[in-house]
Parts: sequence; C-alpha cells; structure tokens
Amino acid sequence: MEAAVACLADHGWAGSTVSVVAERAGVSRGAAQHHFPTREDLFTGAVEYVAEERSAALRALPVQGRAQVVAALVDLYTGPLFRAALQLWVAASNEDQLRPRVTELEARVGRETHRIAVELLGADESRPGSRETVQGLLDMARGLGLANLLTDDAARRARVVEQWAALVDEGLG
Amino acid sequence: MEAAVACLADHGWAGSTVSVVAERAGVSRGAAQHHFPTREDLFTGAVEYVAEERSAALRALPVQGRAQVVAALVDLYTGPLFRAALQLWVAASNEDQLRPRVTELEARVGRETHRIAVELLGADESRPGSRETVQGLLDMARGLGLANLLTDDAARRARVVEQWAALVDEGLG
Repeated sequence: MEAAVACLADHGWAGSTVSVVAERAGVSRGAAQHHFPTREDLFTGAVEYVAEERSAALRALPVQGRAQVVAALVDLYTGPLFRAALQLWVAASNEDQLRPRVTELEARVGRETHRIAVELLGADESRPGSRETVQGLLDMARGLGLANLLTDDAARRARVVEQWAALVDEGLG
Repeated sequence: MEAAVACLADHGWAGSTVSVVAERAGVSRGAAQHHFPTREDLFTGAVEYVAEERSAALRALPVQGRAQVVAALVDLYTGPLFRAALQLWVAASNEDQLRPRVTELEARVGRETHRIAVELLGADESRPGSRETVQGLLDMARGLGLANLLTDDAARRARVVEQWAALVDEGLG
C-alpha cells in the first residue's frame, strides 16, 4: 500500500501500474494482481488505506491546544499521501472509469477528516458558523498542500498556519 | 488561448497537444505551431494569458465590501482556468521539462493575485497577521477549487465563504 502511494505520488496516474508497484514493493506481479485485479482497485485501495492509517495516527496524538491541532491537520495535506490523492483526483476528472470510485473515496475520507477535526478542535457544531469554520480550515489545508506541490513552501506555511489558528479559535468561540 | 485552457481542463496534460487545440480553435495546425513551437509554450502561455484576463476583470469589479470581494476571489479558483492550471501543476510535478516553467508561472500569478486581493480587501500589510490572513484566504480558495473538481460543491462553498469572510474581516481589523 505504501509502495502504491509512493508510486502514484512520484509518477502520476499515467506512470502507475500494478507491475511497477509490485517491483517497488518486492512482491511478485502475480501476487499483486491476485489481490488487485485492476489498477483502479490497487490505487484507490492504497490511498484509502494510507489515509486511514494517518487518521488513526492523528486521533492518537496528544492534544495540546488548538494551534497544535491546526498544525497537525495541515500536516495531513503535505507529503506523499496528499500528492498521491491529488494525482488520483486529477486523473479521475478526465477518466470516466475512475471518477465514481475516486468521488466516493474522497467523500468518505473527507467526512472522516472532518469528524476528527471537530473532535480534536473541540468544536461545538450546534453553534452557528462552527461547522463552516472547520470546513474552511480543511479547505485551506488542502490549498496549502497544493502550494507545496512544486516548491518547498514550509516557511510561508508555518506563518499562515499560526495566523489561521488564531482565526479558527475566534470562529469556534 | 481560451481553446488551449479548455482543452487542458477537459483532457489533462496527456490529452493536450498543439494540434488538438488548433482544431478546437478553428485555426490551421501550421499557424498554431508557428506561434507556439512546443506544447510547453502553448499551454503555459495560455494559462498565463487567461489568468491575466481574469485578474484584470477582477480589478475592474466595483468593490462592495469585503464579503463580496472574498466571494469574487474564491470564484477565480472554480471553473476552467483553475482546472487547467491544476492539470499543469500536477503534470509539472512529474515532468522535469515542465516543472521550472510552471513553477515560475505559478509564482508570478500567485504574486499578482495576492496584490489584487490586498488592494480589493483594503488590507494593511504593515499590521501583524494581515499578510498571512490574505495568504490563507487564497490558500482556502485554492482548496475550495480542488473540492469542486469532481463534484459540484457550490452550496457548501457558499456557506464556507460566508463564514470565512467574517473571520477574514476580523483578521484584517
């Protein structure tokens, strides 16, 4: 699963096949194809698996105030998992065969990330604006991931995250 | 230029060639290739041209308060121009030949969009946090564009934009 995500992040959808991943993972092509009959099975499955691992790791973090939670949430959107997911989204926007699976995966992962964010931030969603504050934060995190795609954006990102953590804190009351 | 952006948005980098665009635009392949010797020339040029047109249109908008400015900025990141730019970014992350040109283009368009946002929002960048508030808003807009790639996200986006317009207003003082 990690090899599939790394392959997608490094080579894009066009350069990602079951054979390439099998070689990278050091397993036989036959074994890989037995588990994953199609590319779509392998790559959507891999992104989902790794996203779940990350979510579990995030839930297990010791929570030390909203500023740290905001930084940890943003970290979900930098690195290979986000790059792999981005490759899938963009490929799905052009390929009818991939679109329904990726749309469904994205909705599932998005709901789960929102739930975790609400919990870690201690957001009261019955309070007007709280839900949208959390959603906008996750949209911002996704945009920061995109900004990091071609250049190392870490220094700017740290300043933006610090300021937005303060705004989120106001928005959540 | 419009045909090149539409082609990139609809078919991705892999499906976008000078010939396909020439046919879509109703010009001869020879004429298109005379102006744009390579794919890289045509598609980075087209994204830049259309981005400049959008920026000029945005600057010319009658400004009616920050909430409307926030909504207009976010609108820059939905639609074919953003989808085309996204295809370029993702292709550039995997292709060494494309990367430096797209990185430079992205930096130039990003700076210009930031300048316009500061101006339209009436942000005082000497005030601590103002610069990062505007940057985070543009990151959020980019993330909202990504969320709109596979499904129509307009209803959710409108609610997020309304709430974050209020938080940005507080952040800018």
